[in-house]
Amino acid sequence: MDKEEKYVDEIADQDDNFSKWYNQIVRKAELADYAPVRGCMIIRPYGYAIWENLQSHLDARFKETGVVNAYFPLLIPRSFLEKEAEHVEGFAPELAWVTRGGGEELEEPLAIRPTSETIIGHSYARWVQSYRDLPLLINQWNNVMRWEKRTTLFLRTAEFLWQEGHTAHRTMEEAEERTRMMLEVYRAFVEEDAAMPVIAGRKTENEKFAGAVRTYSIEALMGDGKALQAGTSHNLGQNFAKGFDIQFLDADGQRKYCSTTSWGMSTRMIGGIIMVHGDSSGLILPPRLAPYQTVVVPIWRKEADKSTVLAQVERIEKLLKRKVRLKVDLSENTPGWKFNEWEMRGVPVRMEIGPRDVQNNSVVLVRRDNRAKEVVPVDALETRLPELLEEVQKALFQRALEFREKNTHYTDSYEEFKRIIAEERGFVRVKWAEDSAAEQAIKEETKATIRVIPFDQPAGGVQGKCIYTGKPATCEAIFARSY
Amino acid sequence: MDKEEKYVDEIADQDDNFSKWYNQIVRKAELADYAPVRGCMIIRPYGYAIWENLQSHLDARFKETGVVNAYFPLLIPRSFLEKEAEHVEGFAPELAWVTRGGGEELEEPLAIRPTSETIIGHSYARWVQSYRDLPLLINQWNNVMRWEKRTTLFLRTAEFLWQEGHTAHRTMEEAEERTRMMLEVYRAFVEEDAAMPVIAGRKTENEKFAGAVRTYSIEALMGDGKALQAGTSHNLGQNFAKGFDIQFLDADGQRKYCSTTSWGMSTRMIGGIIMVHGDSSGLILPPRLAPYQTVVVPIWRKEADKSTVLAQVERIEKLLKRKVRLKVDLSENTPGWKFNEWEMRGVPVRMEIGPRDVQNNSVVLVRRDNRAKEVVPVDALETRLPELLEEVQKALFQRALEFREKNTHYTDSYEEFKRIIAEERGFVRVKWAEDSAAEQAIKEETKATIRVIPFDQPAGGVQGKCIYTGKPATCEAIFARSY
Ligand SMILES: [Zn+2]
Ligand SMILES: [Zn+2]
Repeated sequence: MDKEEKYVDEIADQDDNFSKWYNQIVRKAELADYAPVRGCMIIRPYGYAIWENLQSHLDARFKETGVVNAYFPLLIPRSFLEKEAEHVEGFAPELAWVTRGGGEELEEPLAIRPTSETIIGHSYARWVQSYRDLPLLINQWNNVMRWEKRTTLFLRTAEFLWQEGHTAHRTMEEAEERTRMMLEVYRAFVEEDAAMPVIAGRKTENEKFAGAVRTYSIEALMGDGKALQAGTSHNLGQNFAKGFDIQFLDADGQRKYCSTTSWGMSTRMIGGIIMVHGDSSGLILPPRLAPYQTVVVPIWRKEADKSTVLAQVERIEKLLKRKVRLKVDLSENTPGWKFNEWEMRGVPVRMEIGPRDVQNNSVVLVRRDNRAKEVVPVDALETRLPELLEEVQKALFQRALEFREKNTHYTDSYEEFKRIIAEERGFVRVKWAEDSAAEQAIKEETKATIRVIPFDQPAGGVQGKCIYTGKPATCEAIFARSY
Repeated sequence: MDKEEKYVDEIADQDDNFSKWYNQIVRKAELADYAPVRGCMIIRPYGYAIWENLQSHLDARFKETGVVNAYFPLLIPRSFLEKEAEHVEGFAPELAWVTRGGGEELEEPLAIRPTSETIIGHSYARWVQSYRDLPLLINQWNNVMRWEKRTTLFLRTAEFLWQEGHTAHRTMEEAEERTRMMLEVYRAFVEEDAAMPVIAGRKTENEKFAGAVRTYSIEALMGDGKALQAGTSHNLGQNFAKGFDIQFLDADGQRKYCSTTSWGMSTRMIGGIIMVHGDSSGLILPPRLAPYQTVVVPIWRKEADKSTVLAQVERIEKLLKRKVRLKVDLSENTPGWKFNEWEMRGVPVRMEIGPRDVQNNSVVLVRRDNRAKEVVPVDALETRLPELLEEVQKALFQRALEFREKNTHYTDSYEEFKRIIAEERGFVRVKWAEDSAAEQAIKEETKATIRVIPFDQPAGGVQGKCIYTGKPATCEAIFARSY
């Protein structure tokens, strides 16, 4: 192995240079690549398989709540974007514009959707006549584009994949209920399927979605102590209904505006999974979303053993078909090389099968998260392996939760707050008087922002003073540096 | 019911005005809507559910052949498109161009992908080093854009959804084999899952994909006697490998160009399903792709019967859960209205449950395709209903096949050929000498084109003269007017 190759095989130290570690893992595990178009990415098959698993789990959760899928156009006329003032102000700087089509200059430029509230609002206005047509509960899985200046694979790219749900309701109360319901769907998905603990709550006025009355989000803590917003759900009130004239005839004979919501989760989540679970050897994927839940490494030295081992591998493959997503590595590399490779690529469990294992009719299972080994009789595999995968799933969540708890700080002193943000990072939970100017000042002084005002507040209300203004606190807020 | 409502409820006669019938069905069944952007469509939930079923069936068939999914960027630099001369010539007139992003004029305009051979070729050149990296078998599900002048929902729209598969191989032979393999995957999917008979074969030079060495397609005959290309598979030879420098080091130590393929199927297929199976009452959906395979219509007159009937409906819903995609229509409309509505929307089987049915512990099943009724004991539903759905699936295929056979004409006379195309339409199978100029002349004279040179040719070769040039025929070709 020459020097250059050796260098490529080494992974940067997480504590030393987390963002270098992140970028190396994304590239080495073949999750994604930069595209030849500025700020865009190519999601490679191994990364895309994570996305497909995420889609199938999340989509099933949506459908359980009555949501159906549809598809709305990629291009949005400029005039549509201008109908909701805050919305256009928020998105205008990031838009990409189509100005020519079919050999001609367009009369009106068309934006590539940064999100679809406007074009969907236009449709809903035509589809909704009476209260009997409500609620509309529609989601779409698609690509969107926001012309970002600085980009990182998965975390912030000009084009990304996501889902955006859009609902229309008869009353404000119903819209609020749906907004909270979808946040809860995200929370359950992220905690249960991605094994990533989150804090759910409300965004401040400064941080809410352009055009929303209220934005809720779930926030996760990454391995470097920075926060990641994993999903958001917006109560849009009647803002878009008024902009697009989404009215209905109510049972009382009155024409009324709908209340609408929107909610989204994106390929960003893949970045989150990498940064929450990964370690010095590379990726660790939660079993429910892992492309391969188990990698089988056949081992032999003597050519005579090869056929015995491979026959056993085939039997096991059949045994576990449709029960476990299995990858059998039959490449010419050495077993040691394969161990490293699949550890780096985060496969939750490795199965080793050598000649002695065949003799004993058992296999060796090795967990990726803690390297624990166990010998399992082949007859027990069908029940033990799925069980072990669930154990890994839960252990990953537990470990991430402990990390977050260790890295959640409480202080009443702004000096201490500044020190924590500068030296320790993590979540900082403080008393807060909900003052936008103070929030802005803290952001300028420390780069920390309010990630969320958690739903989970002290019983009986918050006592004491705001950490910054000294005014009587109205809530506890969680600050952090964030992605 | 006032006059206007009545008019809306009527469906145009298929024989009278097929395209009016088509457009009415698409709109009335709430499959799709025109978007406020010229030539673009909104795929509504009922139409999108067909697409989701199509995706899941087709994707599983791809994966069985070793194909994996990935995602490549939406935008393609102009310089990329120019690297394959025929390709850019073919697509240039239909491109939409992004010229501004993030508030600035772009240095190089970016096209919204009309297809992704170029941007994928660029990636493959970086990913492929040695013959050990081959083959690459990657597919993507995405949106593409072609600025069409005349558009029809599903059949031809500026933006549409599709999948595009792209493979790279060590040899020409392997690429050819994969090209044919994927055409066969399409044929099996379309015939088995969409119940639509197709003719598989080769496209002529005039009709092949811009940049391909050889294009294969499957062609179906629509209810109005026009042909629809349902899927295509292209052997690209080394054209794109040379344009993008996709080279590999072979086992013999030589650097060689890969051979590549591409193949696609789009939302067009939904248009095909409508036009092949639909009848004077509306849509008829093949059970395997239908959003709802069975609609349950509960029936009662006396309020006292309501709860008995609804309790039975609930039992049956539970019984059939995860076995049949069921829609229970609990709306306030009359049973008669529901019958018409769900017939128009093409649900393959209707289940009627009234008080007497509850007493007998049975239900009435009514097939959409031939209106045949049968009484089925509730205890037998779990086995009988899935079986009946498969019977409908097969019957739809059989009926479409008979229609196609009845509408396939054979002639050696060009006069008769012209008469058939003008008066009868359908497929016209003729002897052919593979002359591009003659093909072009026939197109101008009759608007008919060669849909395909079928794989299925007379044993022992074609005897006789070309229908147009009189030269010795080299094959049989199928002409038709087409979508
Ligand atoms: Zn601390
Ligand atoms: Zn005839």
